[in-house]
Amino acid sequence: MSDHVYKVIELVGSSSKSSDDAIQQAIAKAGTSLHNLDWFEVVETRGHITEGKVGHYQVKIKVGFRLD
Amino acid sequence: MSDHVYKVIELVGSSSKSSDDAIQQAIAKAGTSLHNLDWFEVVETRGHITEGKVGHYQVKIKVGFRLD
Amino acid sequence: MSDHVYKVIELVGSSSKSSDDAIQQAIAKAGTSLHNLDWFEVVETRGHITEGKVGHYQVKIKVGFRLD
Amino acid sequence: MSDHVYKVIELVGSSSKSSDDAIQQAIAKAGTSLHNLDWFEVVETRGHITEGKVGHYQVKIKVGFRLD
Amino acid sequence: MSDHVYKVIELVGSSSKSSDDAIQQAIAKAGTSLHNLDWFEVVETRGHITEGKVGHYQVKIKVGFRLD
Amino acid sequence: MSDHVYKVIELVGSSSKSSDDAIQQAIAKAGTSLHNLDWFEVVETRGHITEGKVGHYQVKIKVGFRLD
Amino acid sequence: MSDHVYKVIELVGSSSKSSDDAIQQAIAKAGTSLHNLDWFEVVETRGHITEGKVGHYQVKIKVGFRLD
Amino acid sequence: MSDHVYKVIELVGSSSKSSDDAIQQAIAKAGTSLHNLDWFEVVETRGHITEGKVGHYQVKIKVGFRLD
Amino acid sequence: MSDHVYKVIELVGSSSKSSDDAIQQAIAKAGTSLHNLDWFEVVETRGHITEGKVGHYQVKIKVGFRLD
Amino acid sequence: MSDHVYKVIELVGSSSKSSDDAIQQAIAKAGTSLHNLDWFEVVETRGHITEGKVGHYQVKIKVGFRLD
Amino acid sequence: MSDHVYKVIELVGSSSKSSDDAIQQAIAKAGTSLHNLDWFEVVETRGHITEGKVGHYQVKIKVGFRLD
Amino acid sequence: MSDHVYKVIELVGSSSKSSDDAIQQAIAKAGTSLHNLDWFEVVETRGHITEGKVGHYQVKIKVGFRLD
Repeated sequence: MSDHVYKVIELVGSSSKSSDDAIQQAIAKAGTSLHNLDWFEVVETRGHITEGKVGHYQVKIKVGFRLD
Repeated sequence: MSDHVYKVIELVGSSSKSSDDAIQQAIAKAGTSLHNLDWFEVVETRGHITEGKVGHYQVKIKVGFRLD
Repeated sequence: MSDHVYKVIELVGSSSKSSDDAIQQAIAKAGTSLHNLDWFEVVETRGHITEGKVGHYQVKIKVGFRLD
Repeated sequence: MSDHVYKVIELVGSSSKSSDDAIQQAIAKAGTSLHNLDWFEVVETRGHITEGKVGHYQVKIKVGFRLD
Repeated sequence: MSDHVYKVIELVGSSSKSSDDAIQQAIAKAGTSLHNLDWFEVVETRGHITEGKVGHYQVKIKVGFRLD
Repeated sequence: MSDHVYKVIELVGSSSKSSDDAIQQAIAKAGTSLHNLDWFEVVETRGHITEGKVGHYQVKIKVGFRLD
Repeated sequence: MSDHVYKVIELVGSSSKSSDDAIQQAIAKAGTSLHNLDWFEVVETRGHITEGKVGHYQVKIKVGFRLD
Repeated sequence: MSDHVYKVIELVGSSSKSSDDAIQQAIAKAGTSLHNLDWFEVVETRGHITEGKVGHYQVKIKVGFRLD
Repeated sequence: MSDHVYKVIELVGSSSKSSDDAIQQAIAKAGTSLHNLDWFEVVETRGHITEGKVGHYQVKIKVGFRLD
Repeated sequence: MSDHVYKVIELVGSSSKSSDDAIQQAIAKAGTSLHNLDWFEVVETRGHITEGKVGHYQVKIKVGFRLD
Repeated sequence: MSDHVYKVIELVGSSSKSSDDAIQQAIAKAGTSLHNLDWFEVVETRGHITEGKVGHYQVKIKVGFRLD
Repeated sequence: MSDHVYKVIELVGSSSKSSDDAIQQAIAKAGTSLHNLDWFEVVETRGHITEGKVGHYQVKIKVGFRLD
């Protein structure tokens, strides 16, 4: 990491499969409009319960990317 | 909440009327340019004091909205 | 407060009127089944947004009550 | 979420398979005695180590459910 | 805010009316002996329960004022 | 700790003798109605002051116990 | 606690005897110049080590007292 | 600060010179595309180590600016 | 856990497979030089992004082990 | 540090030069009216932005001093 | 404290007698292999419950010592 | 950062010159006995006051390094 400036945005990914997949969903979405994605940090893990099971994992992450 | 991705932004609303109104001001402003606003979370409540009274409540909130 | 033991439970009250009213709703509900309610502490304030306005304030509180 | 009141309880699920499964174990247990389970929040992830491997994931969660 | 030094004190205001009013009570009290009150920050909101209702909102705030 | 689920409750014990005794008071009370008490975690230590001395130590703890 | 305003100050008591005694030392000192001391909250517990033993417990507390 | 709404974004500035300079780098970058920058808050200070020295200070800040 | 003393160290495991595997990697590494590993606690979950996907999960954990 | 009691106050120093200088300004001011200043702790670093640069660093510190 | 560098390690002491004694146990153990122990900070207090009483207090502390 | 494991240690550097220099002192010391130092994170900034000025900045950092 050289003398760059990075922007950090916050996203919530959701997935009915796993908490890791919820992270992947959020990053995949970010990648459709942003370049230079560099790192993520998990802020919060939660989810909805449906019929006595985890319906969706919802993982709030920060995603950092380099400004050109 | 199905398999969507949400973005979370941070705003500070201010109001001379009440702390609840400061939240409303921030959300109303967000609604002028963003669709699908879904939830908010209060991050911090502070304010300025003028002549020995609360001059403005300033409430920092996170606002989540669904990405299309 | 003498040599008593207190139990602390966590509730989320919701209200379309105000964040204070959301606290009141939670305490009123607790009072229908518990006696000796003594104090509350606000843990988190959030809410849903509907049509660009606060739809419901949702306030998570802890409520303490004395065990007999 | 309309004008309801929710109760939040804290559980620790444990699983030798995965941290997601530890969440599922806790929610499944809660569902045997409680209705209207609505959401969960992960509070803490820890575990025991046995023979140089993760023996059990232990995930502390909050579970929210609507009071009738 | 130029090159000044500010002192920050902590107060708890209480009010049977509202949490905003508890903030106002604390600031009004501070204003009777201190000048140059500049800002406040909410640290904690809690209260006493009497007869199944909020008896008093108790809001702990920090108040900043400029030292001459 | 095998594949069990644990519930965690929050209690405040108070004691005029010591902060450790306040913990003991809370656990003793819990033991009168709950089995399988397993661990505790101190959340907060506070107390009342009477005549310029500690009147009561009040220790808020979480208590975990195994669900059958 | 009625409609009063309270001031909260921060003190560090130290004691070579015990952490509870460090709290007592701080409160006793506060009582020599302040009236209406009402409650304390433990903020931090630390200490110095001398010759491989606890030399002094140092407990930082907040002390609340009613303003007349 | 009157009845305005502010947006808060998160940036990471990096600098091989000093942690203050890392803050300046982030703010200078923000100023190339945003007007009305008003305040910053330091969220986290970290950095990379190269050859046993600080290679880059990396300071994560929040930057607030007024929405027109 | 009897009258023992435990040491707690902090490790970051990384894995391209899953966040659980990152925990396993860190514990396996610790086990090559330390005995009596007893428990772990997750401190932080983050990772690198490569080509719009999670490249590596990086999980910072504390690992506790008994001193002989 | 022997069996003394310390008071801790909170100050915000501001400086257009550096964050370290903001700390120095606050301590210098405290020294004009208080004796026995012993230590400080940084609580928060923030500042104002003017013309796309840091206008003032504002550092909130706690300052501890021995009570006679 | 002059221009030295200190290392900080984390230990958990346990004791069936008191939480203060758990701190002492951890420090005594550290003193058998380390010199120049200087200070400690309490990070967490918890414990096991056996037969409805505190079986062991477990206090996690940080211990700082000067590197030669 | 590939599939490696990193260890994180905690150090306190002190310096009479600046807070940045206190970080440098700690890292330089670590470099005399450890290889592969990779990153640092500031945990706490504090210091001693001597004659109404900052005597020493004391910065507690975490330092991460790759295990071979």
